Amino acid sequence: MNTSHVQIIAQQSKIATKLLASSSESQRNLALSKMADSLESFKDKILEVNAQEVLTARQNGHSDALIKRLTIDDKVFKYMISRLRKVAQSPDPLNRVISGHTNPNGLQVYKKSVPLGVIGIIYESRPNVTTDAAAVCIKSGNSIILRGGSEALQTNILLADAMILGAIKAGLPEHAIQIIPTPGHEAVNELLAMDNYIDVLIPRGGKDLIKRIAEGTRIPVIKHYDGICHLYLAEDADPTQAVELAINSKCQSVQVCNALETLLVDKNCAEQLLPLLKTAFAAQHIELRGCEQTQKLIPDIDPATEDDWHSEYLAPILSIKIVNGIDEAIAHINHYGSGHTDGIVTQSLTMARQFEQQVDSASVLINASTRLSGGGDYGLGSVIGISTDKLHARGPVGPDELTTYKWVVYGDGHLRD
Amino acid sequence: MNTSHVQIIAQQSKIATKLLASSSESQRNLALSKMADSLESFKDKILEVNAQEVLTARQNGHSDALIKRLTIDDKVFKYMISRLRKVAQSPDPLNRVISGHTNPNGLQVYKKSVPLGVIGIIYESRPNVTTDAAAVCIKSGNSIILRGGSEALQTNILLADAMILGAIKAGLPEHAIQIIPTPGHEAVNELLAMDNYIDVLIPRGGKDLIKRIAEGTRIPVIKHYDGICHLYLAEDADPTQAVELAINSKCQSVQVCNALETLLVDKNCAEQLLPLLKTAFAAQHIELRGCEQTQKLIPDIDPATEDDWHSEYLAPILSIKIVNGIDEAIAHINHYGSGHTDGIVTQSLTMARQFEQQVDSASVLINASTRLSGGGDYGLGSVIGISTDKLHARGPVGPDELTTYKWVVYGDGHLRD
Repeated sequence: MNTSHVQIIAQQSKIATKLLASSSESQRNLALSKMADSLESFKDKILEVNAQEVLTARQNGHSDALIKRLTIDDKVFKYMISRLRKVAQSPDPLNRVISGHTNPNGLQVYKKSVPLGVIGIIYESRPNVTTDAAAVCIKSGNSIILRGGSEALQTNILLADAMILGAIKAGLPEHAIQIIPTPGHEAVNELLAMDNYIDVLIPRGGKDLIKRIAEGTRIPVIKHYDGICHLYLAEDADPTQAVELAINSKCQSVQVCNALETLLVDKNCAEQLLPLLKTAFAAQHIELRGCEQTQKLIPDIDPATEDDWHSEYLAPILSIKIVNGIDEAIAHINHYGSGHTDGIVTQSLTMARQFEQQVDSASVLINASTRLSGGGDYGLGSVIGISTDKLHARGPVGPDELTTYKWVVYGDGHLRD
Repeated sequence: MNTSHVQIIAQQSKIATKLLASSSESQRNLALSKMADSLESFKDKILEVNAQEVLTARQNGHSDALIKRLTIDDKVFKYMISRLRKVAQSPDPLNRVISGHTNPNGLQVYKKSVPLGVIGIIYESRPNVTTDAAAVCIKSGNSIILRGGSEALQTNILLADAMILGAIKAGLPEHAIQIIPTPGHEAVNELLAMDNYIDVLIPRGGKDLIKRIAEGTRIPVIKHYDGICHLYLAEDADPTQAVELAINSKCQSVQVCNALETLLVDKNCAEQLLPLLKTAFAAQHIELRGCEQTQKLIPDIDPATEDDWHSEYLAPILSIKIVNGIDEAIAHINHYGSGHTDGIVTQSLTMARQFEQQVDSASVLINASTRLSGGGDYGLGSVIGISTDKLHARGPVGPDELTTYKWVVYGDGHLRD
């Protein structure tokens, strides 16, 4: 691939935005349904190509974790299809009148939601990102340029081709969905330079990937950084609820961004709660690391260092800090947290309100597991990630977050005095 | 000023966000009213200090345009105060429940508007930006760091000090409003490095200033670039309306971002309209530059070059291009425009809808002057500029655009299965 190939793809995507912007809701929903149908008709071929790539990845000595992410089995395939069909049924994010009025002189003013334009998705080995991202982008009337990991390249090309065939059947432009068909860094670097054509980039993967992309482009980037999530057990926390919420937040799944990483325990309930927590976490095989005061109450605990407070373990490890009241808890969260998801366990309405207002995070939970933060329980349908940015999209990124708005004004020769 | 001074200001601003985030609407409105009162009580001193800076600027040989922007006379002062009082009366942008629901299991989910945090404003010589920006930031619960032009430094310090005294009287933290009290590039560069404390930067001034800031920082920047605004006269445009709208869009004020820069005339009405337009613009002393076809219909017109289509003149100059139908008009606007404000004159609903959907601009006007695009007619009260970005804030930037949102979840021990 030479430079011009990526540029042609980007230009074609931009041209496709014109028709997408005037497409109807029923046309886009039909496209999603046809994309699902088309994928199903290619199922055998997709699983065969994927199995070959999984084999190659094994031969190349890739980790079990990567192999697992790479693999599309019957169950994963079914899930991918179901997400497309679910997005088709979700509410239309476009052409919502966000606000509107008619001025005394008859000038009509509407603020309406519209597509962002061209969205580039740069991701690592999970091929389901290919279908999830395309679904959310088509739902929101954006054209999409896909750039997945090289281990899954042939799988991704096949997935994209099948979806394109479906989209065309519904009358969408063929360049609404495109994939960069070559591996290597060069194509990514070319993509990062396409600020004339691409409206937003969404990298999905490790912190290094996101950082490299955000710093290497003038295109706006929606970033999905760490989830360093906290739960603060206030002095009046119900002991049973506190332990259950801590365990569920940490253990329900340890490798996800909304899993608990640091538990903050109020000094006035630490003596009562820490022995209970120690026993409960031991039963779940979680390694505990504690601040100095925690070490006094759990004598055999490993010490937590400054690094621990900054860590997203994504592993069966939990750091514990005893804090002197809610103000110290909030200060710790706002300093060490990543603004992703943080919770409090309390029966006090005053503390709940203070925590809600002063914790500067995308999701703030009161008496609920951090694992509930995200698309499903928030009623968003399909999301392509959890943004840790504060501008534009914060928290779960679904079709609504892939829109912008425009001001539409209807007059009848209205002039400015 | 040494490095640590700017850093201390940034840290203090961040600390102030905690109290601002839990401030009430009435407290913030009281603060705006007290800020206006306080400015009024300092009026004599402000006008005296400003007159001294105007004198110095004259002695230093600055342009009349700069002197005009720098000067606060009775009328300007009254206007500045009136804006603060108007913002106080506008709707609260905070704590709006954007969406919300209760899940079948009783989990309550709210998406609420909240302040962005710390906003840095870097601007040139107009001291009214100092009061306008502070008003919009306090209204939206953000702390503000001001960095104005060196010619107005003492005026700006005095304005900021007066406002701080007012804000404190309403119980807001003293660091809610801060100003960098030293001139020079070094302080700006230090400010750009404060990505740990500042949530968004808004540069107000020329294209070079905005570009330098956007490229020199990792802090998100809301950009206010050019207004290369177009008006397309469709083949069925009412001739009288077409001429009136073209004249008003271009001539009502030529030095502003929503003034017309390029007029697109459909080939099917060019022969009829161009002579009328020529006469009308001649009466307004507007220099016309035309494409080849325009030159045939207006023989003595200067030719427009490729540069003209890219130009925001901000001057009594207008470029004219004859286009072959609405598709060419839309393609020209999306290629050469700056996504600021573009209009169509037509009686056709089909063309109006196509133009509305396919022109990729913050403001799209049908049969209305481009000069109507912006805060006042859009019902926004005070705005601090017109964003040409597509992400987060597009078009007029008022208090609403200086908010983000957070997901607030209330449960009673809710776990994830």
